[in-house]
Amino acid sequence: MGWGDLGAFGEPSKETPNLDQMASEGMLFLDFYTANPLCSPSRAALLTGRLPVRNGFYTTNAHARNAYTPQDIVGGIPDSELLLPELLKKAGYVNKIIGKWHLGHRPQFHPLKHGFDEWFGSPNCHFGPFDNRALPNIPVYRDWEMIGRYYEDFKIDLKTGEANLTQIYLQEALDFISKQQASQQPFFLYWAIDATHAPVYASKHFLGTSQRGLYGDAVREIDDSIGKILKHLQNLGISGNTFVFFTSDNGAALISAPKQGGSNGRFLCGKQTTFEGGMREPAIAWWPGRIPAGGVSHQLGNVMDLFTTSLSLAGLQPPSDRQIDGIDLLPAILQGKLIDRPIFYYRGNEMMAVRVGLYKAHYWTWSNSWEEYSKGIDFCPGQNVSGVTTHTQEEHTTLPLLFHLGRDPGEKYPLSFASDEYQRAMDRISVVVQQHQATMVPGEPQLNVCDKAVMNWSPPGCEKLGKCLKPPKSDPRKCFWPH
Amino acid sequence: MGWGDLGAFGEPSKETPNLDQMASEGMLFLDFYTANPLCSPSRAALLTGRLPVRNGFYTTNAHARNAYTPQDIVGGIPDSELLLPELLKKAGYVNKIIGKWHLGHRPQFHPLKHGFDEWFGSPNCHFGPFDNRALPNIPVYRDWEMIGRYYEDFKIDLKTGEANLTQIYLQEALDFISKQQASQQPFFLYWAIDATHAPVYASKHFLGTSQRGLYGDAVREIDDSIGKILKHLQNLGISGNTFVFFTSDNGAALISAPKQGGSNGRFLCGKQTTFEGGMREPAIAWWPGRIPAGGVSHQLGNVMDLFTTSLSLAGLQPPSDRQIDGIDLLPAILQGKLIDRPIFYYRGNEMMAVRVGLYKAHYWTWSNSWEEYSKGIDFCPGQNVSGVTTHTQEEHTTLPLLFHLGRDPGEKYPLSFASDEYQRAMDRISVVVQQHQATMVPGEPQLNVCDKAVMNWSPPGCEKLGKCLKPPKSDPRKCFWPH
Repeated sequence: MGWGDLGAFGEPSKETPNLDQMASEGMLFLDFYTANPLCSPSRAALLTGRLPVRNGFYTTNAHARNAYTPQDIVGGIPDSELLLPELLKKAGYVNKIIGKWHLGHRPQFHPLKHGFDEWFGSPNCHFGPFDNRALPNIPVYRDWEMIGRYYEDFKIDLKTGEANLTQIYLQEALDFISKQQASQQPFFLYWAIDATHAPVYASKHFLGTSQRGLYGDAVREIDDSIGKILKHLQNLGISGNTFVFFTSDNGAALISAPKQGGSNGRFLCGKQTTFEGGMREPAIAWWPGRIPAGGVSHQLGNVMDLFTTSLSLAGLQPPSDRQIDGIDLLPAILQGKLIDRPIFYYRGNEMMAVRVGLYKAHYWTWSNSWEEYSKGIDFCPGQNVSGVTTHTQEEHTTLPLLFHLGRDPGEKYPLSFASDEYQRAMDRISVVVQQHQATMVPGEPQLNVCDKAVMNWSPPGCEKLGKCLKPPKSDPRKCFWPH
Repeated sequence: MGWGDLGAFGEPSKETPNLDQMASEGMLFLDFYTANPLCSPSRAALLTGRLPVRNGFYTTNAHARNAYTPQDIVGGIPDSELLLPELLKKAGYVNKIIGKWHLGHRPQFHPLKHGFDEWFGSPNCHFGPFDNRALPNIPVYRDWEMIGRYYEDFKIDLKTGEANLTQIYLQEALDFISKQQASQQPFFLYWAIDATHAPVYASKHFLGTSQRGLYGDAVREIDDSIGKILKHLQNLGISGNTFVFFTSDNGAALISAPKQGGSNGRFLCGKQTTFEGGMREPAIAWWPGRIPAGGVSHQLGNVMDLFTTSLSLAGLQPPSDRQIDGIDLLPAILQGKLIDRPIFYYRGNEMMAVRVGLYKAHYWTWSNSWEEYSKGIDFCPGQNVSGVTTHTQEEHTTLPLLFHLGRDPGEKYPLSFASDEYQRAMDRISVVVQQHQATMVPGEPQLNVCDKAVMNWSPPGCEKLGKCLKPPKSDPRKCFWPH
């Protein structure tokens, strides 16, 4: 989902009454970011509080390449990483993930091995394969075992876009919350729905209800579900001690537009890029009675902050034996403070850009290669900013391209290198970048090796269902990451 | 000002608390349009309820050219046109215009000859000339007489952007309202401020207060002023019987970006064009106790509707001897009804596009000429939609380019001509267009002839001030309209 997909963020159809109300009862973050313009690394960053380049969710197969966890990925979340649910357990929390995990699908990466107590959802994205013959369809797990596969047992009609998955995920959420409330357990629910990822889907009740087409139907169903979850918390009388945060893992995938793609508002480009459209996210914090209603924050935030903030809420300290990139947002949320901190925009193993205050400096620019672009893969459709949305990787490390995101949120007008303003801003930014790079210890890259043998051929539970498939011979090779 | 310039419409700095509150207390219009992508014709349309091609505010000097009322324009609002204040007078209204008139500056076009009782402001835009030597600076009038000139007596510091004009306009508005309330007079106030037109200005108190730079300072001052006007109505106890509407005369002028240009959100291009960025406007209706708070309307609206709606509020009928394009919006505003009506997008003498429902058909596309574009004049900076933002006037009258503005508000993906959806939508649109064109009787074009002799050399009142300048010999010629 993109920054511009909610009514509260200016979507012209204004079809998200529940999220808009969540914002009016809570706090809207206008300058909130994901840690990566792609799904898996963002989610790994959210759960570890660390940049993907630290937690291993990146590739060194080529320079500045986006990588994730398709079915043939060999890697996943390393055991050495401490995940939010692992830490929350120490404070007695019961942890559940509903939806997409995306931190590796081999046995050692299973979410229940990394702190979650319950899981309902899938290890990989719900896009292809769709026939479960040449390649296994993605399994859907309940806790330790597969209970079926997408397209076979959990239908997504690729023609109509109909699927009732969001309704299933909603019911799972409501039931989990009820159960914890009944047993007076503190809980952490990671509700990782994926209806807005192509192939986009919505359940029958929502199909055809949006001005925006199928993508809008999916957004409306998510919006409706979030309204029901918040209402449920209120009905159970626990909204006063439940912190809820809504955000997304990357900007809208403009390559899927217009039928399956969302909106990044007026920001440049989308998913896969380190322009604002790829990484600035809608974000809302909600905690009635604690967060002032109708608040608006310009705090530079990041999904990694949800790690540290959640620990803080549970009275826990973040681990001190490693670099944590997330900060505790509670002073910003509860007291309206503004904490000075940078935002780093990575693509794979490269820091492409950094934001300090309202300034954003691009050290590298790239949308995608001419080769991919010539095939019709366009991450910036209808947009073309000369020297910025480049189709070759352009290095600007000696003289970064600098934008003022207040005057120029669309990253169209680089500041003059000769201006005083450029010099003043870069003086400040350079210190931040030097310090960041000098202390950077990259983790072991997890997204380098692919092997068809590791796909979801025979997930645990497949025997009972008669759904075990025979893997091919192992043939590990370097994953190919074109972007 | 552009659609995306208010917080309520998704401006990322969210710096318009008063307008946002006006929206939350009133009704937000998301699909509201101006009648032309340029100032003078829009204002003429607002005050006459008629398309510029009917009321004469267009040119036939060349095909599909934007024209307005610079100082050397010979024409202006014809006597045959009936303006909103002329009609409101019949119901006992006192009418005042504060700010930019822009319907012609020669004596016969004076606002007090067209129904206004009071005027404080200028006949033309406040941009150049700036030295009052070779050409006269724009006069500022109080009622019948000039009381000074821009840059000489009413300072705008072009270096710092400082000017206290909005504060003067605000005080004029508050005083006028107080006076009418004291004398129990119904009133019509046309508050036509122009701080967001380049050269953009703000008063000292607002300078440097916006994340967005000078343009944002100007927006903040307007926002603050509107808050004060609404508060004044409430303090006087007349908010319950005062209808207030906020909108703009054209999309943000992206040619003035980033320092002096606003935002059209995710819409395509800006001022001067018939893409959504040029003509979709922020719009808010406010009338506490009558308009449901927090309302949102998808009614297709147009500035011309303010003519008919205002007459309706005053218990008057629109003139029946001529075609009126504005509709009465009260059923949409008070009862939430949706009235089926098209939006026509004109550029000079050509209907470039039409919107029916969520479909928009372009019969002609043009941003500007290659010649102008090569000089650096770009109405769509950073945007380029192949075959859409064309630099030659492209005719599509036999097979219009069709967009679905719900799925594709940015006008990037024309529907396939071969699709059923295209056929169905065009069947519906063609009927509307045929009827529109068959009954169209264009007015006498007023914006064809220019003559330096008609400039504001010696406006009434200049003798008293010793500010009369000597006009050159009359030398009327066809105005040159490049866009």
